[in-house]
Amino acid sequence: MSDKILLAHGSGGQLSHELVEHLFLKYFDNPILAQLDDAATVHVSRFTFHVPGSFNGTSNLKLAFTTDSYVVSPIFFPGGDIGKLAVCGTINDLAMRGATPLYLSAGFILEEGLPLADLERVVASMAATAQTVGVQIVTGDTKVVDRGKADRLFINTAGIGVVPVGVEVGGDQARPGDVVILSGAVGDHGMTIMSQREGLRFDAPLVSDCAPLNGLVAAMLEIAPQAIHCLRDPTRGGLATALNEVAGKSGVGIEIEEHAVPVRDAVRAACELLGLDPLYVANEGKLVAFLAPEVADGVLDAMRAHEYGREAAIIGRVTEEHAGRVVLRTALGARRILDMLVGEQLPRIC
Amino acid sequence: MSDKILLAHGSGGQLSHELVEHLFLKYFDNPILAQLDDAATVHVSRFTFHVPGSFNGTSNLKLAFTTDSYVVSPIFFPGGDIGKLAVCGTINDLAMRGATPLYLSAGFILEEGLPLADLERVVASMAATAQTVGVQIVTGDTKVVDRGKADRLFINTAGIGVVPVGVEVGGDQARPGDVVILSGAVGDHGMTIMSQREGLRFDAPLVSDCAPLNGLVAAMLEIAPQAIHCLRDPTRGGLATALNEVAGKSGVGIEIEEHAVPVRDAVRAACELLGLDPLYVANEGKLVAFLAPEVADGVLDAMRAHEYGREAAIIGRVTEEHAGRVVLRTALGARRILDMLVGEQLPRIC
Repeated sequence: MSDKILLAHGSGGQLSHELVEHLFLKYFDNPILAQLDDAATVHVSRFTFHVPGSFNGTSNLKLAFTTDSYVVSPIFFPGGDIGKLAVCGTINDLAMRGATPLYLSAGFILEEGLPLADLERVVASMAATAQTVGVQIVTGDTKVVDRGKADRLFINTAGIGVVPVGVEVGGDQARPGDVVILSGAVGDHGMTIMSQREGLRFDAPLVSDCAPLNGLVAAMLEIAPQAIHCLRDPTRGGLATALNEVAGKSGVGIEIEEHAVPVRDAVRAACELLGLDPLYVANEGKLVAFLAPEVADGVLDAMRAHEYGREAAIIGRVTEEHAGRVVLRTALGARRILDMLVGEQLPRIC
Repeated sequence: MSDKILLAHGSGGQLSHELVEHLFLKYFDNPILAQLDDAATVHVSRFTFHVPGSFNGTSNLKLAFTTDSYVVSPIFFPGGDIGKLAVCGTINDLAMRGATPLYLSAGFILEEGLPLADLERVVASMAATAQTVGVQIVTGDTKVVDRGKADRLFINTAGIGVVPVGVEVGGDQARPGDVVILSGAVGDHGMTIMSQREGLRFDAPLVSDCAPLNGLVAAMLEIAPQAIHCLRDPTRGGLATALNEVAGKSGVGIEIEEHAVPVRDAVRAACELLGLDPLYVANEGKLVAFLAPEVADGVLDAMRAHEYGREAAIIGRVTEEHAGRVVLRTALGARRILDMLVGEQLPRIC
């Protein structure tokens, strides 16, 4: 391990995982963090006090709690901006635990000299996104650092949601026989950011898929509240990394049909030009679900009826064999191991 | 208003308030955020789902939820470091609503090239601080930005606490007749950071007061769960700014006896050298409380019995007169208006 922080430590891939395991889990040693899910779930009980006449009943809620910092560059891009991303990303992490998102916090780190008009545009975008999903931004903080000590603005959002009674969705819940469903085409967000940064132009425009997925998840849970075992949004490190995380945490094998994974032509063209694999490119409005085979058709129908799931497709299944590994069956019938992202493809993608 | 972000927008003083009012409240328009307290309080109810046999009772919890980003420079200083500060600051914001802190999130923004040993020292400090107060860091995130696009590391923490039944502590709850108690000497944190940055040396060393105040608050609430009306930790902008916020939100006047406010000799000397007023210098381990006069003696005793309240003192009272204003009675008997911080004293103090 290097003795300095590298860009790859923020990739979401192998080095990120090593940093979490060897440093954060070593010190922040508790079973909730150790789940390493998109959001933590915590049980919160009513605290009573020595107040005459106060209600002394017990109550207990299962909350989902998550945080992400957003450092994407550029801060405005086709399909979104850092503000929309900061709201969607945290809402999605809550939704991936089956939670109904309720409240967000927003922490801004601003570079001295940032045009107020840029900040206003970002804040307006955050507000509009939060409003469409019925979530409130209830607490916040602003810090300003000297020019050259940050890059325009960074945003942190944390979020709280409530997990409905009976819902148990987690990265360690996938089981052999589960069907793997992907909600739509992969690679849009990552290739959009990359093409903006590199000044690349393609015939078909690249647009980020940045979107809030809580409504899609609610529609899925409505059909099968207890048969959806695991949900992940494949952000940094892409679909391949998300699948590897689930295979590892659930102790199962995963087989994916390469031809079943939708990839837009523009994304494929950009990936070929840059020598990238779309399976490792970040998404910000997609999810992959692991669920019992008997509910797969019903859930797929519900997903396709939702604006963010129209291209939903079954892309594979969970196996007992090759536990902890993801195997890709190529169009030609060959099988190869699909590893977690190693190194980094593109820093500051979210 | 300037059309660019200035360092003073992060001061906690007048320009910070303008930014919040004219920008954040304009877009994030909801009554919870509009409270502008150290933490938001939100009511969360159990969500039931269409799960056969699931419990359908109702339950409702009052949670406190808060966030802060920490950008202090230097990241290590006498009395603490950015990690200890990030845990204490968010715990204190929860405690200022009377909440029992339970869970924290931690979001790291790391500059490429940061020595891993520095990160480890910070993370160890966060873990140790969280452990002493019985709070768990349950979810986190790490981003890495290119060298020169941040300054070593920034940390965001968000926190969740439970507000005990019957406790109603808020910035708008101070009322005429209330006694104002300060938990100890002011200015230690701000002058410590400033002296480190400016390379100043004094005979008596300056040490940050950075400390978690939840235990002190619990001891105070134990004595008087319903007679403590308002709590504030005077961080950026110092005691003067915190008092002005309470005067404004509660619609009351506040009278402070200048000679009753404890200031250490080293802080006074450093302030005189630099032409600063200790009443405007940041603290990270102090609180100011507004409470009913009949419980003042009992609460004061409880505070003085606690390690972070040994120097607690009554410093003033709440009046009906000059509502919205803070008046300082000087040692010579003169009275002057104590305004909110204008401009900025020292950027990146927390």
